Amino acid sequence: MPNSRRAGLLCFFVFPLIILGLSRPALAQEPASLPIMPLPFQSAPGQGEFLIDGSFGIELTGFTEPRLEHARQRFLDVLSRETGIPLWREAVVNKANFTMYTAGPSLPVQQLGEDESYRLAISTSGVQLSAANPLGALHGLQTFLMLVRVTPKGFSVPAITIEDKPRFPWRGLLIDSGHRFVRLPVIKRNLDAMEAAKLNVFHWRFADDAGFHIESKRYPLLQEKASGGFYYTQEEVKEIVAYARDRGIRVMPEFDMPCHTASWFRAYPELGSGHIPGESSAIDPTRESTYAFFSGFIQEMAELFPDAYFHTGGDECDFHEWESNPSIRGYMRVHGIQDGAALQAQFTARVQKIVAGNKKIMMGWDEVLQPGTPRDVVIQSWRGPKSLADAARNGNRGVLSFGYYIDLNQSAAEHYAVDPLGDPSAASLSPDEKARVLGGEATMWTDIVSDENLDNRVWPRTAAIAERLWSQEDVRDVDSMYRRLAVVSQKLGYYGVRHRLITEEMLERMSGDPDPVALRVLADVMQPPKGYERQQLRNIGDFTPLNRLDDAVPPESETARVFDGIARRIAAGKAAPEDWQQAKQWLLLWQDNDARLQPLLARSSLTQDLEPVSRNLSKVATIGLQALDDLSHNRLVNADVRNRNIEFLDDAAKPHAVLLLMVVPSVEMLVRATRTE
Amino acid sequence: MPNSRRAGLLCFFVFPLIILGLSRPALAQEPASLPIMPLPFQSAPGQGEFLIDGSFGIELTGFTEPRLEHARQRFLDVLSRETGIPLWREAVVNKANFTMYTAGPSLPVQQLGEDESYRLAISTSGVQLSAANPLGALHGLQTFLMLVRVTPKGFSVPAITIEDKPRFPWRGLLIDSGHRFVRLPVIKRNLDAMEAAKLNVFHWRFADDAGFHIESKRYPLLQEKASGGFYYTQEEVKEIVAYARDRGIRVMPEFDMPCHTASWFRAYPELGSGHIPGESSAIDPTRESTYAFFSGFIQEMAELFPDAYFHTGGDECDFHEWESNPSIRGYMRVHGIQDGAALQAQFTARVQKIVAGNKKIMMGWDEVLQPGTPRDVVIQSWRGPKSLADAARNGNRGVLSFGYYIDLNQSAAEHYAVDPLGDPSAASLSPDEKARVLGGEATMWTDIVSDENLDNRVWPRTAAIAERLWSQEDVRDVDSMYRRLAVVSQKLGYYGVRHRLITEEMLERMSGDPDPVALRVLADVMQPPKGYERQQLRNIGDFTPLNRLDDAVPPESETARVFDGIARRIAAGKAAPEDWQQAKQWLLLWQDNDARLQPLLARSSLTQDLEPVSRNLSKVATIGLQALDDLSHNRLVNADVRNRNIEFLDDAAKPHAVLLLMVVPSVEMLVRATRTE
Repeated sequence: MPNSRRAGLLCFFVFPLIILGLSRPALAQEPASLPIMPLPFQSAPGQGEFLIDGSFGIELTGFTEPRLEHARQRFLDVLSRETGIPLWREAVVNKANFTMYTAGPSLPVQQLGEDESYRLAISTSGVQLSAANPLGALHGLQTFLMLVRVTPKGFSVPAITIEDKPRFPWRGLLIDSGHRFVRLPVIKRNLDAMEAAKLNVFHWRFADDAGFHIESKRYPLLQEKASGGFYYTQEEVKEIVAYARDRGIRVMPEFDMPCHTASWFRAYPELGSGHIPGESSAIDPTRESTYAFFSGFIQEMAELFPDAYFHTGGDECDFHEWESNPSIRGYMRVHGIQDGAALQAQFTARVQKIVAGNKKIMMGWDEVLQPGTPRDVVIQSWRGPKSLADAARNGNRGVLSFGYYIDLNQSAAEHYAVDPLGDPSAASLSPDEKARVLGGEATMWTDIVSDENLDNRVWPRTAAIAERLWSQEDVRDVDSMYRRLAVVSQKLGYYGVRHRLITEEMLERMSGDPDPVALRVLADVMQPPKGYERQQLRNIGDFTPLNRLDDAVPPESETARVFDGIARRIAAGKAAPEDWQQAKQWLLLWQDNDARLQPLLARSSLTQDLEPVSRNLSKVATIGLQALDDLSHNRLVNADVRNRNIEFLDDAAKPHAVLLLMVVPSVEMLVRATRTE
Repeated sequence: MPNSRRAGLLCFFVFPLIILGLSRPALAQEPASLPIMPLPFQSAPGQGEFLIDGSFGIELTGFTEPRLEHARQRFLDVLSRETGIPLWREAVVNKANFTMYTAGPSLPVQQLGEDESYRLAISTSGVQLSAANPLGALHGLQTFLMLVRVTPKGFSVPAITIEDKPRFPWRGLLIDSGHRFVRLPVIKRNLDAMEAAKLNVFHWRFADDAGFHIESKRYPLLQEKASGGFYYTQEEVKEIVAYARDRGIRVMPEFDMPCHTASWFRAYPELGSGHIPGESSAIDPTRESTYAFFSGFIQEMAELFPDAYFHTGGDECDFHEWESNPSIRGYMRVHGIQDGAALQAQFTARVQKIVAGNKKIMMGWDEVLQPGTPRDVVIQSWRGPKSLADAARNGNRGVLSFGYYIDLNQSAAEHYAVDPLGDPSAASLSPDEKARVLGGEATMWTDIVSDENLDNRVWPRTAAIAERLWSQEDVRDVDSMYRRLAVVSQKLGYYGVRHRLITEEMLERMSGDPDPVALRVLADVMQPPKGYERQQLRNIGDFTPLNRLDDAVPPESETARVFDGIARRIAAGKAAPEDWQQAKQWLLLWQDNDARLQPLLARSSLTQDLEPVSRNLSKVATIGLQALDDLSHNRLVNADVRNRNIEFLDDAAKPHAVLLLMVVPSVEMLVRATRTE
């Protein structure tokens, strides 16, 4: 590259950034929006701010218990990390200017619907947090931590009075330890983040076709033959249950049946319904011995998990296995069972009786709702909010997961738009029926996510879902959500969540470069394909390394999202001068990146297939720069060129190397905004 | 538009790095130098490479014990993190292509001088690691992990045969839990990193004037009154001793006496020698009750720590306290003790007898070496290698810490240059005398370091010290050291060491900005002042928050180091065209940074005092750009202007806001290279 070219580029890049630096608002000084997520039920701003310094002291009053002591210590740990002031040590002995009052205990086993409200009053001189029980107190501490910011005077929180309570009582995160074993530290830090986001149900799924990952003392062959050596001991489970309770979180286990159960048969093949041994994936629901087994198993697990709810799955049965088994066909004929669905309903009814016999309430996926399903069975809907409204009319309670499948790489805005009561048919529900819609759960399936990158799939997007479930129905401003999500995302780092570190670490590994600048530029605008397309494009086995770029990048490209907003304003003729500059700056960066990146990609087996992707980004950027120039000069463009460009963009918008180049639609928008000769 | 900042970041760093990216050799493809630190005793390259994929299997043969199983699991954990291949799960059941043979056990308590050698033979088809005992086996596993890199074929290690053994048997790291309590996870991850660097002594210091941080069951007032609530329980100590043993690391405790002991007197004031209660910092060595106490205390601690060595400090006594106490003065007169030093010698002799009575070998700082000091007392020298040579002649063994004070913010190169046998007087030592120089210890004092930023003070520089102590005397190439240090620094991230994350996290906190681009540019060329100047410039109490820029930045600025090399080449007339370009790009970046940073600095109490520093960087860069231009045009410059610039630079080179602007000397070099009219 000749010198003059580089010098020119440098000037170009430095200049617009000066303006950006001067013009952008600092989050900490943005008075209009509280940097809290989920937004509280009510808040009234006060005058001034409460300073946090080495004299900070916190006192617990009213009811107390070890859980509240732990909560205070955790609170001080995070506050110390937020401020760098070693409060974890001093705040216990200092004179208290933060008083937490807890009126009484919560129930010995956390129950659905317990009071979670709190009141947080912050003035310049002190803080009062009060709550009916420890659950509300825990939430109030988290709200305070989110309010902390640095100011010219030091670290502080604004004076404010908050009255807060959740809209829905069931706000969950499912972590699937069935497809892949998820190690304990990962579970723990996600529970920490759940506490920060005020989620209160950890739905823990232990088994799938791929593996069975929890210790059974009664049926030890399960972990011996089906866990691959990796399972949670019962001691570890108890540790997690206690860890979650400390954070105001219930732990509900899921044992999915009668399908997705191939792993069980590696230990107990007689449970399976396939007539070819080792090729079964569904339980044989026609043998009495099956129910004897599950009677013992469910009893053991019901004792291990104190929660009142017990999830038995029930999703996605492929009835072919039953229908092709002569013995099962015979049973169906004899008992007048018409089809697989009816057979599953019979199985579900018997399992429900076992669950109920252990004083637990059964929960299952959509499919368990059948005529005759007992009223207390809770439906978890993966099909949509309509089935929840239907269930509510039927007298059953339900929890929404449709729309909250965080493994499918949708945007935070897409998840945020989904409301458990959002189906049109829900509008006609009576208040009692509406109350049967308990809330929702984000679902972190691990078919194609490992515990290395799990954090960056769950966070920060799940905080947007948590807001949907906690905050009032009319809290819907997407721009505000994204602004606050950025703050929450940073704060979660203080809880030890690794979502912001993962991409960089994986890029370094892929490239073998401790500072992979050009690969970062590319990665920054890439996303894994949405929905199930990624699964289809990659041939993933249970132990396939998940160390490629589609594993590394977050599900939502921040840069592409912001660029899209700019492109929209430009295409609509509503752009500010900064928008034009920013767009040009980005497009130049992307255009030039390929020349630097291309020779590096060949050096690693994990980056070789990115060569066409990188070339595409460069060419897309060139087209975008041309469109930008045409638009800025109001120039008429040649229709053939424009069509060829659109054709190229349409192809570039498709998945390549299991990745989407997320800026393509925005560039196409710019091209389509130009006028032809 | 907060996300536009991300593009800013990219542009800024892309520029200087474009050239680096094109011109610098990829480490993975640099055949001349093994990316291993410390460099092995002998190595012979082979043909080809050994590929690491999902079929990797590792088998332990010969002697086995749980420690070796743990080591394999740890090895697989790191290897999985290095590659993203879930080997931690599969490699245990796969057919082995990595065979580790351990001939026999090591001693039940790890001893100084045990065989640590190993042989590692890597071919395209397999790996053989063999060692006399587990200590060597542990080292060999670490060497393999350092060799892993990504290639066009996948992850691999080069074919090679390595025969390795250490030069010195004592290779330590002191962590001072006396000035500040260092939490257990920090201790643990530093032990993990020590294993990676083949260090084998963790010197753990528990008390200083500021606090006493270990549980005594015999004298519980120590932790109750002097720990501030933070101390290691004896169970935790045992856990750490076992954790270290698992990693081939001895744990030697230090209880510093008779001075630096003010904390003890908060529990047991009768031990102190001050006549004003509560203002004593030295033990009263004239009372029999003092020795009764230490007899009990040392016995308890000697039982807790299995290591053969027991450190009793002895440094930096200020004898004024003794000499101003009439009772102590009287004792000295009666016993014919001339001065404080002689009194300390008497104290040391009695303490040594107690230590020896507990079957331990005493170690102490320089001051404990006096006429009559028993031969088995080991001297730790903070004064210099000459005192080690003197001690060796005297028959005493010694360990060097002078020159390895990693709290003093020296460069890796400065530490690397220090050799335990490097004093001129050591040349005349006999082989037996030389063997008394056992090695060295890096010392992480925590007067002004917290456990938040401790990792970035210790690593990666301590790996350079570890190489000095492990590798042969003639391994001295500083460029090679820095090249390999960069690789090791990245690898240490796979062990969970946080040194590469700390600066960024602290800058975010200081600025309240999730992506503090301009602050990062400034931070990148700043260093804390070297030596004790930082302590003098900051008024630090035991609980002063360490959350300012001099706490955040690493002790050695990489950017400034590389820029200095370029400036040297330019000043010497030996620069390549890329050097000129790189220098200009950096100077432009620094010149323009102030305009963006200045308005942001006022927003946070933690950045306000950086305003003049940022302005200085800009002006220094302007001067540098002018000098660069003058030099490139061979232009004669005005002598007055040149002198005024040098005057300005001399002032800018001084500490401001407790920080050094590290590029100033390099710019001054450029200015001085210009010729005057």
